[in-house]
Amino acid sequence: MQINLIEQYQQVRNQSIQLSAPLSSADMCIQSMADASPTRWHLAHTSWFFETVILKNHLTEYTPVNSDYNYLFNSYYNGIGNQFPRAQRGTQTRPSIEEIMDYRKTIDQQMLKLLDGEFSDQVNFLTQLGLHHEQQHQELMLTDIKHAFSLNPTYPQYQPSTEQTQQQAERLSWLSVDESVYQIGHMGSTFCYDNELPMHNAYVYPCKIASRLITNQEYQAFVHDKGYHTATLWLSDGWDWCRNISKHHPLYWLRKDDQWFEFTLNGLQPLQPHQPVTHINYYEAEAFARWAGKRLPTEYEWEVAARQYGAQTGNFVNSGKLHPQISADTQFLGDCWEWTSSSYSAYPGYKPFAGAVGEYNGKFMCNQYVLRGGSCATPEDHIRFSYRNFFYPHQRWQFTGIRLAEDD
Amino acid sequence: MQINLIEQYQQVRNQSIQLSAPLSSADMCIQSMADASPTRWHLAHTSWFFETVILKNHLTEYTPVNSDYNYLFNSYYNGIGNQFPRAQRGTQTRPSIEEIMDYRKTIDQQMLKLLDGEFSDQVNFLTQLGLHHEQQHQELMLTDIKHAFSLNPTYPQYQPSTEQTQQQAERLSWLSVDESVYQIGHMGSTFCYDNELPMHNAYVYPCKIASRLITNQEYQAFVHDKGYHTATLWLSDGWDWCRNISKHHPLYWLRKDDQWFEFTLNGLQPLQPHQPVTHINYYEAEAFARWAGKRLPTEYEWEVAARQYGAQTGNFVNSGKLHPQISADTQFLGDCWEWTSSSYSAYPGYKPFAGAVGEYNGKFMCNQYVLRGGSCATPEDHIRFSYRNFFYPHQRWQFTGIRLAEDD
Amino acid sequence: MQINLIEQYQQVRNQSIQLSAPLSSADMCIQSMADASPTRWHLAHTSWFFETVILKNHLTEYTPVNSDYNYLFNSYYNGIGNQFPRAQRGTQTRPSIEEIMDYRKTIDQQMLKLLDGEFSDQVNFLTQLGLHHEQQHQELMLTDIKHAFSLNPTYPQYQPSTEQTQQQAERLSWLSVDESVYQIGHMGSTFCYDNELPMHNAYVYPCKIASRLITNQEYQAFVHDKGYHTATLWLSDGWDWCRNISKHHPLYWLRKDDQWFEFTLNGLQPLQPHQPVTHINYYEAEAFARWAGKRLPTEYEWEVAARQYGAQTGNFVNSGKLHPQISADTQFLGDCWEWTSSSYSAYPGYKPFAGAVGEYNGKFMCNQYVLRGGSCATPEDHIRFSYRNFFYPHQRWQFTGIRLAEDD
Amino acid sequence: MQINLIEQYQQVRNQSIQLSAPLSSADMCIQSMADASPTRWHLAHTSWFFETVILKNHLTEYTPVNSDYNYLFNSYYNGIGNQFPRAQRGTQTRPSIEEIMDYRKTIDQQMLKLLDGEFSDQVNFLTQLGLHHEQQHQELMLTDIKHAFSLNPTYPQYQPSTEQTQQQAERLSWLSVDESVYQIGHMGSTFCYDNELPMHNAYVYPCKIASRLITNQEYQAFVHDKGYHTATLWLSDGWDWCRNISKHHPLYWLRKDDQWFEFTLNGLQPLQPHQPVTHINYYEAEAFARWAGKRLPTEYEWEVAARQYGAQTGNFVNSGKLHPQISADTQFLGDCWEWTSSSYSAYPGYKPFAGAVGEYNGKFMCNQYVLRGGSCATPEDHIRFSYRNFFYPHQRWQFTGIRLAEDD
Repeated sequence: MQINLIEQYQQVRNQSIQLSAPLSSADMCIQSMADASPTRWHLAHTSWFFETVILKNHLTEYTPVNSDYNYLFNSYYNGIGNQFPRAQRGTQTRPSIEEIMDYRKTIDQQMLKLLDGEFSDQVNFLTQLGLHHEQQHQELMLTDIKHAFSLNPTYPQYQPSTEQTQQQAERLSWLSVDESVYQIGHMGSTFCYDNELPMHNAYVYPCKIASRLITNQEYQAFVHDKGYHTATLWLSDGWDWCRNISKHHPLYWLRKDDQWFEFTLNGLQPLQPHQPVTHINYYEAEAFARWAGKRLPTEYEWEVAARQYGAQTGNFVNSGKLHPQISADTQFLGDCWEWTSSSYSAYPGYKPFAGAVGEYNGKFMCNQYVLRGGSCATPEDHIRFSYRNFFYPHQRWQFTGIRLAEDD
Repeated sequence: MQINLIEQYQQVRNQSIQLSAPLSSADMCIQSMADASPTRWHLAHTSWFFETVILKNHLTEYTPVNSDYNYLFNSYYNGIGNQFPRAQRGTQTRPSIEEIMDYRKTIDQQMLKLLDGEFSDQVNFLTQLGLHHEQQHQELMLTDIKHAFSLNPTYPQYQPSTEQTQQQAERLSWLSVDESVYQIGHMGSTFCYDNELPMHNAYVYPCKIASRLITNQEYQAFVHDKGYHTATLWLSDGWDWCRNISKHHPLYWLRKDDQWFEFTLNGLQPLQPHQPVTHINYYEAEAFARWAGKRLPTEYEWEVAARQYGAQTGNFVNSGKLHPQISADTQFLGDCWEWTSSSYSAYPGYKPFAGAVGEYNGKFMCNQYVLRGGSCATPEDHIRFSYRNFFYPHQRWQFTGIRLAEDD
Repeated sequence: MQINLIEQYQQVRNQSIQLSAPLSSADMCIQSMADASPTRWHLAHTSWFFETVILKNHLTEYTPVNSDYNYLFNSYYNGIGNQFPRAQRGTQTRPSIEEIMDYRKTIDQQMLKLLDGEFSDQVNFLTQLGLHHEQQHQELMLTDIKHAFSLNPTYPQYQPSTEQTQQQAERLSWLSVDESVYQIGHMGSTFCYDNELPMHNAYVYPCKIASRLITNQEYQAFVHDKGYHTATLWLSDGWDWCRNISKHHPLYWLRKDDQWFEFTLNGLQPLQPHQPVTHINYYEAEAFARWAGKRLPTEYEWEVAARQYGAQTGNFVNSGKLHPQISADTQFLGDCWEWTSSSYSAYPGYKPFAGAVGEYNGKFMCNQYVLRGGSCATPEDHIRFSYRNFFYPHQRWQFTGIRLAEDD
Repeated sequence: MQINLIEQYQQVRNQSIQLSAPLSSADMCIQSMADASPTRWHLAHTSWFFETVILKNHLTEYTPVNSDYNYLFNSYYNGIGNQFPRAQRGTQTRPSIEEIMDYRKTIDQQMLKLLDGEFSDQVNFLTQLGLHHEQQHQELMLTDIKHAFSLNPTYPQYQPSTEQTQQQAERLSWLSVDESVYQIGHMGSTFCYDNELPMHNAYVYPCKIASRLITNQEYQAFVHDKGYHTATLWLSDGWDWCRNISKHHPLYWLRKDDQWFEFTLNGLQPLQPHQPVTHINYYEAEAFARWAGKRLPTEYEWEVAARQYGAQTGNFVNSGKLHPQISADTQFLGDCWEWTSSSYSAYPGYKPFAGAVGEYNGKFMCNQYVLRGGSCATPEDHIRFSYRNFFYPHQRWQFTGIRLAEDD
């Protein structure tokens, strides 16, 4: 078990370094909007997490690397202390990338020292939490640099482009969910976040869930049918959002010489009709569903259907493709995070993690919507059917997509 | 039945006039923030609703009173047409109050003409909808003018102040809800909004619900315990809100000469310790609950408890007191709208009203939270246990209060 | 002299009442933007000025009418005390119009009591200042209500429309100013503001000044020549302003059924080609001048030319037309305030008025531009060649127009 | 002459490289506010200026280096084309620093090719303009990186700190300017900007000008005397600014452990009492002058006094100190840009440069104030008595200071 944890630690920590390898030290410092953070900051913050949550409390005679870091690299833990203003992270170049890489090495040495001996269940749990935490930031490293690069008129490539498949999307079919009381939430003793617990009963009505994600081609039909100009398709807040954007299409689509392109981590590419539409926010997903005469699933419906039908698995960060691929039938994991109609809230009997990490999830249970299933930027061993991601309804810089549902 | 509807029509329509009676024509024109509307606009808009939804479609040879009104007095019905900008309603004094009162009379004459003959179930339904709609605006007339008057340093009285009771609040006890699948939503054939339907099963876990609302005295303890200065008590969005307000107490509280006062529709009054705290937003309610070691109830828990225990009834607009009074034990209706932890969303199988009034409720099912029970500004015949009110979590100009819950 | 002052006092004070006569009490309360104030506030503030500057200091045993008024009706005199927030003046309906009219009467009684006896030169001066001050607010009463009415889709008339003349504008000719050192500023012992003093020498280069104001027809040519879409015609700040407005024409122009209209105090009227273009801001005036191959005059050039050529006089509030009329040749006063290229600054040796009224002019000598000549909303006995009005370059709700100049 | 120009070209271009030498490639990419630009952008834009204004028009068969650069590195020349949004410059890392350095080398080769042969007076003039332009950006490179570093809680040093002199400031005396018509503007045939021309007569009244700049110690007295909390000391716009800042002292001052520090390009340093106060905006300079019972000089008064008394010269970028040093008596150049009370406007008969560079100065003649004399970040051969710098009154990230004046 200890050996596994050490291997897992090294694998995850190394993956962060791998993901930053294509970037120059300048690339690692930029921040293109308040929601995104520089690569540099992700690399430091994930190390700060191990240092603060584990080393300071569980390694005897541990001396913090630098007293400034507790302010500079704390994200949002008010219980731990004040934080450098989030929107200004892109103004910082010191400590330098080299100093941050040294910081990572020091933390790794100390963590391995700790894990190499006897350690408590608490250390075991917190280390796993730290690794899952780092995996979340790995996904953000990719989506944040994608956003920054998208603002550059030269359309930089994070990695070289590869050949596109000529495959077609499968015909969309409908998977039936029966009326019943179901068990929802994480089952078993493996790691999960506090927001997936406790496992609990929920009454679910009969419904049908789409067998795959909505494609670019299907979404184009909505765009061309004046979807972005038809008020009655939208939530009230969605329509307010829609009237305040200047380009009426998904975030990274681009119309050039009468053809649609899409900005990807492989640079600007012709829009692939059969790939899942992505970088869609909740308002867009909701309006598309209404236009299609359907609706979004609740997170309970999604979880029930995924457990029942989710035989296939999709495309994760492990493939290195870093873009959603054609969605397979009954594939509920990978490619795109799927918006549900469920506001992010506590399960009955929810208890936040103890201590400082109690701020990890619970305080965000307001005004956000649950997404399920992971994406092409998620590590495959990070995802599970009970996993609850959450974003504000206007946000669309993650690899987010649409799965429809309807009443039966 | 027809006669009842006519009586009901006349009673409700007359009530709007009664509520505007204490106001000067200038008072009726002001708008103190984008969320609030001038009395003048409420009086016109509610008439426009009858004209647009009923008279134009169901009274043969009906000629609209004024073609400008469809733009000026449409609130948010995109399916009907464009709307005069909401935030600018307070810049308008024409049509004048006199013209608007004439408009009301014309609409009343035409509606009574329609209701005096044979009419369809559809007309019956839409008339009831129009009357419930007008009752909602009556509540807003009171809360909107209260907000406007609150900005006036002379603290105008909407009505003269009355003597305060010296009664004490009852001791707060806890009402048990058993674990079960319950039926939620409107039952029977009487009028309800689309958002209360369909009646459906929901799995509810055992919990306890407070027997009464939180008092000013109890909320003062939170204020004095640095509640507004303790980050870890707040939702993340709530803390952002809290750091951007300058006065760290409920909206209408005022500290003067080392004593607490409260601005009411009876002018500035000493804060009454045993009255329910009111004009609390979701963030404040949620933070108070965490400080108290409790939580807010879900709307399902609230509805189950209210049906089981809600024997007593409270203080509505009918009493003329226009301020929450001491909350009785097991009183679930009246005095203050009660925040629940439930995000406002569609019930399973939800269908919006047909036609233009489909925009009445459904498009607001995003980013808002459900409140239950009605307030001191609600007409008593407007409220029911299944009634779902909804506001954004930062809003606090309604008569909103706090009922606590806890897991059993 | 005393009798003259009393007559003058009564005439000016009465004129404010006359100007508010066409308005309902609701009209008098609205505020359409932060720059504008409600009529109600103007009526109260001008009385507060007499009360605060004269009665409180110079009438023995004077008791202020209401202690709240010093906060509510102080405009910007920090030396006197805090002020109710300017942008919220439109939220106030108490004291009511009736109370404000009573306030005016009380102030008038007390002022007349003071002026009826022996009084100091200081009282004489401050009374004249108070009357000039009130005349400035009379102009604002008209431009502020015009702005408010312009936001009403029914285009209310402040007064009934009158027949339009069919006269043509005179041919624009050029008046020569010789190179010399000139005397600038107020001459003689009659009343003037501190900003017109001291009279001083200034070196002026030879130039030519247009004989009349620019007409609507001439400005239309600029609009139709893509003037609002040609960056190189504009000051840098002007271009920023221009890209942030949605309608590319003067403030009150309106395009309807392929014809130009203009909103006036007589309601919506067909645009009159030969009337001076008005409600033009500094940026627009400056861009128009560059488009025409000319420039704006400095305030020194304007004053020299006006003294030399300004034989005719124009259209003031006294005519009751309340809109610029066809501009006569060599008419430098009336119809439109004329933008100069001079930033509003202190004359050499400038001394602010003593006491609280030292804040009247001096503290605004930053970021504003000087306008000369008065307008159709100015009382004729208020204007003089040395008079310096000033507004920010983006502001255009005053009756402002364009007179061109060029180097000789 | 040609040889001189080549030497001058090489010296100035090399200086930009020298100034960026202490910075990492990441440092060169950050932008801390919309007013500031990344070092990287300055290095590219100054090369783009030579390429666009000279090489494209005057070198036969010249091929632009990269077609994207005309959009990416155009600052504000609307006549040349659209510009990448200024406020987003800090989101760009491509082209990389290496590519930009290559761009500079290519431009240098081509410029030297052009200057090595016969060339027109126009090329000679434009090359000098390009070099002066680059010198302005060198000053911005220093002030922009200083601002960025100031936001970093670790207070990075641009260069190592040096020992502080213990010298005292000289006693402030007053230099008399006589009443007369003076000649103002650039005299002679050497290079100057269009805004310094034409030389012209101006009538100047007798006044006295301070013999040196205001010191930190003198400014501290204003701070400690509640200068930032006394409304009547400030211009109206200045007071609005003052109420919206959170720290009531100069931009880079810092109070720590009851002692004043100042952030400098040498890192955080104890505040030196006798050095000139710097990073002061117009509002602060103006309020300080009023508090001191004096005023700021006009730019005419400044120029007359500087020509008459300006015997000594001060501290420029050439010294390498990069911070204002103790100001010598009758020293009008160097150390700090000195605010004048003159709004930036055209001299009588002003003609902008011909062609695209006509946008260099003229379009900014609005809402800005003139500063004179150069600073510790200005190249010594860049400054002259007629030189007119200009900034908005709220800006204070330049090395700006205060020289007082008074009427005689």
